[in-house]
Amino acid sequence: MNLPSKYIERAVEQLSSLPGIGKRTALRLVLNLLNRSEGEIDQFAQAFIDLKAHTKTCIVCGNISDHSCCSICSNDKRDRSTICVVEDIRDILAIESTSTYKGVYHVLGGVISPMDGVAPSDLSVVQLIDRAQTVDVHEIIFALSPTMEGDTTNYYLYKKLKDFDIVITTLSRGVSVGTELQYADEVTLSRSILQRQPFTI
Amino acid sequence: MNLPSKYIERAVEQLSSLPGIGKRTALRLVLNLLNRSEGEIDQFAQAFIDLKAHTKTCIVCGNISDHSCCSICSNDKRDRSTICVVEDIRDILAIESTSTYKGVYHVLGGVISPMDGVAPSDLSVVQLIDRAQTVDVHEIIFALSPTMEGDTTNYYLYKKLKDFDIVITTLSRGVSVGTELQYADEVTLSRSILQRQPFTI
Repeated sequence: MNLPSKYIERAVEQLSSLPGIGKRTALRLVLNLLNRSEGEIDQFAQAFIDLKAHTKTCIVCGNISDHSCCSICSNDKRDRSTICVVEDIRDILAIESTSTYKGVYHVLGGVISPMDGVAPSDLSVVQLIDRAQTVDVHEIIFALSPTMEGDTTNYYLYKKLKDFDIVITTLSRGVSVGTELQYADEVTLSRSILQRQPFTI
Repeated sequence: MNLPSKYIERAVEQLSSLPGIGKRTALRLVLNLLNRSEGEIDQFAQAFIDLKAHTKTCIVCGNISDHSCCSICSNDKRDRSTICVVEDIRDILAIESTSTYKGVYHVLGGVISPMDGVAPSDLSVVQLIDRAQTVDVHEIIFALSPTMEGDTTNYYLYKKLKDFDIVITTLSRGVSVGTELQYADEVTLSRSILQRQPFTI
């Protein structure tokens, strides 16, 4: 693309550096921004500067927060003896939106993936072991994605944590609510048969 | 979504104000930005401030440019007696990328669309008529989208321009290059039969 202005070029370059946004989409977004007032553009730009300047990482769990300790970790009503290990803060949002979990979290920052060059040392594994040792933790829930990388990470963490006096659990796997049985994949279906549950009403 | 930081909330709000970007996508983009350095974020934000501050609208054609007259209008090699009327600057980029057009452009800024509240007065129609009157224009090409709104606008412009001594043309319509004939829609196919061309080799 031969853009008519170097400022459009730079803005397109910046927007297309975001994941999932190509040059064409970026140009469409830039033209939308060009139609806004100077004040609106300032607000737009300031939002990202403030984002970087003012957000902090929770010193306890690694969640992102406005304070040094996040609203979940600083909430006295949460059960601090149960830690749910997640990949990133979007998983916290997903679990929080169910309103069924009352424990605290630990953000791992990713999963072990040799293909993407992510080693255990890139994740907050040491911090998790520290928490398991120092605080009175009763249960650690592995809530990583049900992928090969997630399973590898689960296994790695299990090996590190199994000698502590802590119950280690993982999210149940089985058929999704609301799907037709015939469309469930074989691995999920076979797992849901093997791990069948007592019927309750 | 109950976001853990008001700064994340604001950044998500700003990004999701862009067309085609929802709250979930915006959050993914914001988390990507959070992983960047302060310098990179400053560059990101500055690109939009510069965009608004330094880009100008070409006084002749309405194209966006770094100067008051765009690189096409100020190019002596372009044929100023032929004006191609387009909807927005993305259409200029598309036509320029074909390298087959040597004339100049006129950016209309949209098409007449009563449903979206776009009236002829919202477009640069007066400026087009001025150009047709003052400069020695030989041909005006309508290159608007082949939609009902585009056709309405073509008709409106034709009524305004038909009394000038100017050839008025429009982009040819027909089957796209590389498509299978059986998948062409009926209107396009019937038009391509009615407007059939002498066969050349």
